[in-house]
Amino acid sequence: MRIVVTGAGGFIGRELVRRLAAGGLAGATSEARIVAIDEALPPESLPLGIRPVIGDISDPALLDAIMAEPIDVLFHLAAVPGGASEGDFGLGWRVNALATLGLIERLSRQARPARMVFSSTIAVFGVPLPRDRVDDETLPLPTLSYGAQKLMMETLLADHARRGTIDALCLRLPGIVARPRRPGGHHSAYMSDIFHALAAGEAYTCPVSAASTSWMMSRQRCVDNLLQAAVLPAERIGTRRAFCLPALRLSMGEVVEAMAERFGPEVRERVTFAPQPALEAQYGSYPPIVTAIADGLGFSHDGDAASLLARALELTEA
Amino acid sequence: MRIVVTGAGGFIGRELVRRLAAGGLAGATSEARIVAIDEALPPESLPLGIRPVIGDISDPALLDAIMAEPIDVLFHLAAVPGGASEGDFGLGWRVNALATLGLIERLSRQARPARMVFSSTIAVFGVPLPRDRVDDETLPLPTLSYGAQKLMMETLLADHARRGTIDALCLRLPGIVARPRRPGGHHSAYMSDIFHALAAGEAYTCPVSAASTSWMMSRQRCVDNLLQAAVLPAERIGTRRAFCLPALRLSMGEVVEAMAERFGPEVRERVTFAPQPALEAQYGSYPPIVTAIADGLGFSHDGDAASLLARALELTEA
Repeated sequence: MRIVVTGAGGFIGRELVRRLAAGGLAGATSEARIVAIDEALPPESLPLGIRPVIGDISDPALLDAIMAEPIDVLFHLAAVPGGASEGDFGLGWRVNALATLGLIERLSRQARPARMVFSSTIAVFGVPLPRDRVDDETLPLPTLSYGAQKLMMETLLADHARRGTIDALCLRLPGIVARPRRPGGHHSAYMSDIFHALAAGEAYTCPVSAASTSWMMSRQRCVDNLLQAAVLPAERIGTRRAFCLPALRLSMGEVVEAMAERFGPEVRERVTFAPQPALEAQYGSYPPIVTAIADGLGFSHDGDAASLLARALELTEA
Repeated sequence: MRIVVTGAGGFIGRELVRRLAAGGLAGATSEARIVAIDEALPPESLPLGIRPVIGDISDPALLDAIMAEPIDVLFHLAAVPGGASEGDFGLGWRVNALATLGLIERLSRQARPARMVFSSTIAVFGVPLPRDRVDDETLPLPTLSYGAQKLMMETLLADHARRGTIDALCLRLPGIVARPRRPGGHHSAYMSDIFHALAAGEAYTCPVSAASTSWMMSRQRCVDNLLQAAVLPAERIGTRRAFCLPALRLSMGEVVEAMAERFGPEVRERVTFAPQPALEAQYGSYPPIVTAIADGLGFSHDGDAASLLARALELTEA
């Protein structure tokens, strides 16, 4: 079994590769050969037995080399995230669209269709979001180029799945927390920063209001779901190949409460709310989310705020 | 004013070019220079004053040449239709996706954003369609590669419109009648053939049932709508840049009745219905269509079956 991971050096990719190396792909019948691809792969992030490939997936020669042998499962995580691709359209287009098209085109020529797990995004829905709820029938109207590019790839992958050329699943990921505190092109960094700052005993100025609501998932639970997508039997999957993952809908106030329960009441006093209207509009007004398709396929969120927090800060083992 | 038409030799393109040459673009303040592009452009289809460009729009050199001067309005009609692109994925992808991406990429670099009128399709909705109705909030789930490719381009063009790089409008065309009776890759040829056969006094075996319903528009009314899209002031258009045109929903029985009223009752006896399940499923079960966005922008359908018929057979002047 040959498994390829793009974006393997990223926040989600590193954890996915670690879990794959630890035999995390339930039901894999033959020994897994795992290829990890990224522009940079720090050696300490590569467990034993992983084949690293350093390079840019928008390089056709790199794609040809990866595809020289058939792939059983491709996790395509590499992306230029929302903030960066909004600021530099050409960069986002090159990776999120053109490189992905190159991957898809090559993969579709394989004699035996690969399972492709594509990390899509809730950014396929633009803002303002519907007030009452988002569900599997909600019309995606992206208001970020990142969301538009991901939506285009979803549409193409659903067509390849229908034609039988790629057995693709596109998972629309919610905000994955808690990302490391460094610049990564993520507009929504505050969703992660608040966890790290408060856990470290620091003061934190939250750029959205206490009432602002977001859809969240821990990295550990995200990787659980990616692995689930890789092993789902094709006959269980319907014609819908792109859908939202279940997510916990939490207000920033609820996040602070969960932190206070874990780390003590003084946490509450260390938080100031200074809402920025643009951030609040883009990321802070998420209505309830209903994920019937994903629920039926066995995908899941973190359960409750306390569990999300424990996993987000990796206080528990995956 | 420089106007470019791709697919100018096609059924809709020929009529659009004729109308443009006759000064059909209301409100054009300067003299129009019109460039007509297609793989073949019969001289008789080119009115005086039109600059013909014979070539393949998937050729980058051709695109560069077209874009050497700024464009004010681009009508992008060139496409490989549903049947042909379903049978030959590579051909459809090359024209409907790659050539269109090449056009969009070049157009987006223009200093002054062009108005781009893109002929999209109701095939962005797959089958089965919702039973009760299709409206501006209906989720597009294509079940033909043609529809998937058009939907991808809609998504990209909406993003360029949002960013202000291309002032794009994507019109989802219903079945345009009556196309000439010749092979053209159109699955839905029966929608046109029935008009021609019955008008010519011939017998006709209809491959869908009398009760089967479709959304139809005459070529003349389609061109009215394309011209309307070209001159709509940008400030009247909202954020929704892709929507269905209004269409008459007619059963094949109603089409036959309209023909009988025009050409005499013997028309009814010349029709036999021999439904083919696959055609009936793909094209024969269209629910009511509600087109609030298009209605609000002044787009319109043919009014009634008798008017549709008269225009479809070009018994009236545009």
